[in-house]
Amino acid sequence: MTQVVRTIQEMMKITSKFKSENKSIGFVPTMGALHEGHLSMMQSAKEENDITVVSIFVNPLQFGPNEDFDDYPRPYEADLAKLIKTGVDYLFYPSVEEMYPNKLDMTITVGRLANVLEGEKRPGHFDGVVTVVNKLFNIVQPTHAYFGKKDAQQLVIIERMVEEFNHNVTIKPVDIIREQDGLAKSSRNIYLTETERQEAVHLSRSLALAKSLYEDGERNSKVLIQSITKYLEDNVSGEVVEVAVYSYPELVEQQTINGQIFISLAVKFTQARLIDNVIL
Amino acid sequence: MTQVVRTIQEMMKITSKFKSENKSIGFVPTMGALHEGHLSMMQSAKEENDITVVSIFVNPLQFGPNEDFDDYPRPYEADLAKLIKTGVDYLFYPSVEEMYPNKLDMTITVGRLANVLEGEKRPGHFDGVVTVVNKLFNIVQPTHAYFGKKDAQQLVIIERMVEEFNHNVTIKPVDIIREQDGLAKSSRNIYLTETERQEAVHLSRSLALAKSLYEDGERNSKVLIQSITKYLEDNVSGEVVEVAVYSYPELVEQQTINGQIFISLAVKFTQARLIDNVIL
Repeated sequence: MTQVVRTIQEMMKITSKFKSENKSIGFVPTMGALHEGHLSMMQSAKEENDITVVSIFVNPLQFGPNEDFDDYPRPYEADLAKLIKTGVDYLFYPSVEEMYPNKLDMTITVGRLANVLEGEKRPGHFDGVVTVVNKLFNIVQPTHAYFGKKDAQQLVIIERMVEEFNHNVTIKPVDIIREQDGLAKSSRNIYLTETERQEAVHLSRSLALAKSLYEDGERNSKVLIQSITKYLEDNVSGEVVEVAVYSYPELVEQQTINGQIFISLAVKFTQARLIDNVIL
Repeated sequence: MTQVVRTIQEMMKITSKFKSENKSIGFVPTMGALHEGHLSMMQSAKEENDITVVSIFVNPLQFGPNEDFDDYPRPYEADLAKLIKTGVDYLFYPSVEEMYPNKLDMTITVGRLANVLEGEKRPGHFDGVVTVVNKLFNIVQPTHAYFGKKDAQQLVIIERMVEEFNHNVTIKPVDIIREQDGLAKSSRNIYLTETERQEAVHLSRSLALAKSLYEDGERNSKVLIQSITKYLEDNVSGEVVEVAVYSYPELVEQQTINGQIFISLAVKFTQARLIDNVIL
């Protein structure tokens, strides 16, 4: 049975006890609205650790003023049922007041890594992510923490934070989980209209197209970007807001490809902005 | 015998092991040049914990461009002898390259609490302090960490960081240790000329004067500040750079005293800027 913990103090007490017993603690931080992407992370956490902790916290700090904080889905009962079914030991489920009882006097700012790609379009977003994950790591004290490769920039930034702040945790990147037709699972997919949902298959297909060009020897980023952009413009009604080729994990824009890269895209549909990526 | 640890990885391994054995870890972060103020903290750490860790790290991030980073005293052999004599278990003694192998991409900025008193005069100083203490707490994973009341603003800021970042550590404030004539012990006292050293007794005496006025019922901050300033100007050759009355621990300037306050002063001698304070 999953035990629900609502206060920081209780959560710290529980995990401190497990640490003092030399137990490994697998942690999956989420904003809820759990889908198979999350479940896959939880399953890995369960397999690889003595204790599994999931947090559900819709973090206001990582939403911009015009973003969907109020409307972000919060299907608590359904989420809890999934945690119970997966056999998660603890759900950390704090209120906003519990996490941010006062205005913060310390602010954490992410530099260059947050000024490209998603971060450039969502100023302050990754500052909010790092602020809350830093708190969660100190509260939950995990030995292993699971992050999806779907949010590849987030993953890079969290790995950098762990390195710079010296958190005593191993970050475990988890592969993107997709629908049968290839659409990356996301809590925001529910906002798609029926037509948009059908079109959304083309996000992963456009990346597959770029991948095949790359495998055929194409090393000019511009060519890959143009192919993806044209393919998307021809096949989806949403606005293609970004197609980019960056080195990974350094996140430096690449003209000529050389070493590991990361092709990412973002498409804005009427009610949802979807992202997808592939690492080559 | 004190074991000297030079890498982050080794330090984390050692303290993780003690944590997994449910041992308490007392931690005293220092910049070296150890004096009786530090020794008093180490003794408390030793009495109150299973394991005692001291760090010596002259943190470049907390020195301004015109401050004394290069000239800061680094009497390593003498410091180590003191640690051994006190019975400290571990000295964490990393290089600058070990602590900051790359330019940091995450910056921590302290807000209002750093924009008054010492912080106002040393822009970026407390950002540097918080950045390094956050790292050290994650590396050493102490159950108890000791900070001197002499650096009262630093103590308040560290306590706030622990609260906002949810570090799993108890901060133990340690009283100011003074020379027989009342001068607060400081690593910077060695920079005083002989005459300045004799005059420096008047820093604590001016605070004693204010305390006696306060005890006689004086609640007007201006009167206390003027009394201290005049006393110092009459008795020391150094420049009186600050005399202030602030609420504690909120650090809000007080016109009329009401609740706990903190009288602080700073005097700039030829080669050393000394601070002292009293909490009433």
